[in-house]
Amino acid sequence: MEWHRRHVLGLSDFHPEEMEFVIDTARSMEEVLSRDIKKVPALRGKTVVNLFFEASTRTRTSFEMAGKRLSADVVNFSSGTSSVTKGETLLDTARNIEAMKPNILVVRHSASGAALFLSRHVSCSIVNAGDGANEHPSQGLLDLYTILKVKGKIAGLKIAIVGDILHSRVVRSDLHSLGRMGAKLWLCGPATLVPREMERTGAVVTSDIREAVRGADVIIMLRIQLERQKTAYFPSLREYSRRFGLNRDVFSLAKDDAVIMHPGPINRGVELSDELADCDRSLVLRQVESGVAVRMALLYLLAGGSHVAH
Amino acid sequence: MEWHRRHVLGLSDFHPEEMEFVIDTARSMEEVLSRDIKKVPALRGKTVVNLFFEASTRTRTSFEMAGKRLSADVVNFSSGTSSVTKGETLLDTARNIEAMKPNILVVRHSASGAALFLSRHVSCSIVNAGDGANEHPSQGLLDLYTILKVKGKIAGLKIAIVGDILHSRVVRSDLHSLGRMGAKLWLCGPATLVPREMERTGAVVTSDIREAVRGADVIIMLRIQLERQKTAYFPSLREYSRRFGLNRDVFSLAKDDAVIMHPGPINRGVELSDELADCDRSLVLRQVESGVAVRMALLYLLAGGSHVAH
Amino acid sequence: MEWHRRHVLGLSDFHPEEMEFVIDTARSMEEVLSRDIKKVPALRGKTVVNLFFEASTRTRTSFEMAGKRLSADVVNFSSGTSSVTKGETLLDTARNIEAMKPNILVVRHSASGAALFLSRHVSCSIVNAGDGANEHPSQGLLDLYTILKVKGKIAGLKIAIVGDILHSRVVRSDLHSLGRMGAKLWLCGPATLVPREMERTGAVVTSDIREAVRGADVIIMLRIQLERQKTAYFPSLREYSRRFGLNRDVFSLAKDDAVIMHPGPINRGVELSDELADCDRSLVLRQVESGVAVRMALLYLLAGGSHVAH
Repeated sequence: MEWHRRHVLGLSDFHPEEMEFVIDTARSMEEVLSRDIKKVPALRGKTVVNLFFEASTRTRTSFEMAGKRLSADVVNFSSGTSSVTKGETLLDTARNIEAMKPNILVVRHSASGAALFLSRHVSCSIVNAGDGANEHPSQGLLDLYTILKVKGKIAGLKIAIVGDILHSRVVRSDLHSLGRMGAKLWLCGPATLVPREMERTGAVVTSDIREAVRGADVIIMLRIQLERQKTAYFPSLREYSRRFGLNRDVFSLAKDDAVIMHPGPINRGVELSDELADCDRSLVLRQVESGVAVRMALLYLLAGGSHVAH
Repeated sequence: MEWHRRHVLGLSDFHPEEMEFVIDTARSMEEVLSRDIKKVPALRGKTVVNLFFEASTRTRTSFEMAGKRLSADVVNFSSGTSSVTKGETLLDTARNIEAMKPNILVVRHSASGAALFLSRHVSCSIVNAGDGANEHPSQGLLDLYTILKVKGKIAGLKIAIVGDILHSRVVRSDLHSLGRMGAKLWLCGPATLVPREMERTGAVVTSDIREAVRGADVIIMLRIQLERQKTAYFPSLREYSRRFGLNRDVFSLAKDDAVIMHPGPINRGVELSDELADCDRSLVLRQVESGVAVRMALLYLLAGGSHVAH
Repeated sequence: MEWHRRHVLGLSDFHPEEMEFVIDTARSMEEVLSRDIKKVPALRGKTVVNLFFEASTRTRTSFEMAGKRLSADVVNFSSGTSSVTKGETLLDTARNIEAMKPNILVVRHSASGAALFLSRHVSCSIVNAGDGANEHPSQGLLDLYTILKVKGKIAGLKIAIVGDILHSRVVRSDLHSLGRMGAKLWLCGPATLVPREMERTGAVVTSDIREAVRGADVIIMLRIQLERQKTAYFPSLREYSRRFGLNRDVFSLAKDDAVIMHPGPINRGVELSDELADCDRSLVLRQVESGVAVRMALLYLLAGGSHVAH
């Protein structure tokens, strides 16, 4: 196939073949990452700007590594959210950066729709690195890629996603990537955090983690944003952990070869017991590994890699 | 001509031919920026350190992009002002960096004269990226370059600069760059912020924005430092905006082909209405674009580009 | 000799020949730094991550310059200590970075043993850039190298180290580097800050700076961590400076060709008078210079420079 996108804003309009194309490209990138010299000249002379309006050292570092390994120049532009309370200022900042002629802007922002909004107003490519509770497409793709590496397929797998479904951009992107590839998705969390409307996505919704995990092939635990606890979506962290944390007892209900995923960073003892976080069924670090390859693939395709039609 | 400077500290001693030489070099750089691969190997193996004692992500990013596109290694060294309250510490920091043998230090500091002071004590080249209320020479040159691109000349143009003249390093550099090239400069702002002594520069001083803008070819709106408002140089932001903001009504007094400039970031609704900030007569983003080219030119000349005599 | 280390965690187990080997390599690097183009392709395609859990712009910059001059990609990952109060989180962060496949992690952390701890859990090379009050091996080696450049030898030199011995990782590394090479070390500071047990290292312990400095070849003044003063290890800064600061009077007791060192940044007027900090017997800036060369040598050897057996 040919790649026609100028931006990667979300997975909501990605066709399965497109996702497969990104994954294929990521596989080539992972081959590069297995070499002694993990670098190719594909993006030499191109500039990637990490425009982060939310602190996220991990995701920013993953994109930075991805860019540098493609030989792009990478510039980090982090802005305290204080200075961008107004939408206009977000746009002014982006247009300002755009005027410096980068090829790709990797944008993280606390407002849902920020990446889409910018894509309508700037001429360079935009990669959404997380916009509010909307999407985090590179996470959706790296989750897809990680599961494919281990399970060899997505269709027919029972995948349980557990936690704060309501606020999670990871869930929204995973629903598109895993759902569209044919997984049977179960969404589980406190009733206040799993809106019934999510059933419209085709997923099964439950507040019983045992039901969600029973017979599952993959369990994706979401990070609890401790700073959100002020608004009291659930009674206490201990209570949350008791009802929605994954421990050995609950995990034993899953398939024998079930695997555990988490977008990181883990709140140990909350979402995952130490034992499970570090066991050989945990794919957490493989997700990070896949992340660099997937981000290399996205930057490569957007910057006009060789298979690519502009 | 040949380039003999080791530092760019301010424009106060720049001859018109020197400014033209920088602009000519910037034109070559802009040609590089119009290519698909916006990078040349001119500064390969050279090191540029951004030594910023004041937060300024935009200017720092512009210099970083400029350096990287010349293939220099760029290292960002940002220091909280807290740790540099004493002049000795500024010098110690700079000497420390100097001992690591960079080729160029790009320095921003809140104290007027900081760049000059350092240039007397270190052996590498210094570019002043803004020192207190003194100078911001790359801004003065990029303003010059931007106007030249649009108007084709400077001599004889009526250029109004409006805002906090007293504290503005942009004004001081623009007075040298635009004034020396023959512009008729008008300085306008609240009486508390436009010292009468500025008339000695040859500029006309007024507190009436209509008078300043009438028949102007170029209007440069300065950013109001909102944090300075504590010291009450003017009654209120609303009052300031009403009297010294540029809106359609006031702008209609300017020449038909008048253009609007602003060093950014704009306080929308204060210095400029949204309508004017985004209209096709606004050169704000072209200034940013010119900025990268001018900074490439300065780094190139200081690091010993091919026309250059040490 | 051949280099067999995968990590540089401290100097406690470094043999003299190994230190000499690093110094020899640093000499080659210093030759590179004397060229117009201060860059070699030795680490092209390799990635160095600066993982700093304590603010230290100088040391981070020195490692960043060292990496870039070897053509490595350098990624800075700074984490507020707030987010790493738990050991697990330090490990999670490091494992996360490791999964992105860097070649070398340069780690600074406030906990003694952090670098050793990480080296046991990650597969990439670790360079300890300072761990609590334990070690700062690149500082120990650059001090050794700096003295060698000036004195031509270490054995038999009287070297006085003055200040907060108790909390200093510099002292611990210097004891290994300088002590093992045959220097006669004197440790001097307030009784509360120079534990008697330090005599077991073979050093002479005293609280009389005159005794320590008398006949010394080298005087290393340690930085007082002003933030530690809350815990009142000494009565006041003025009192400290009067008894343990180096001034012309005390310095006159040293050998005629004695030199002064300090790991920086200097608290002027506390550890060193301005006069001595800036005199031609001060090696402070030569230490910084040596630092880049020594760090280039360490990164080069760890990444598998040509003499190196894995």
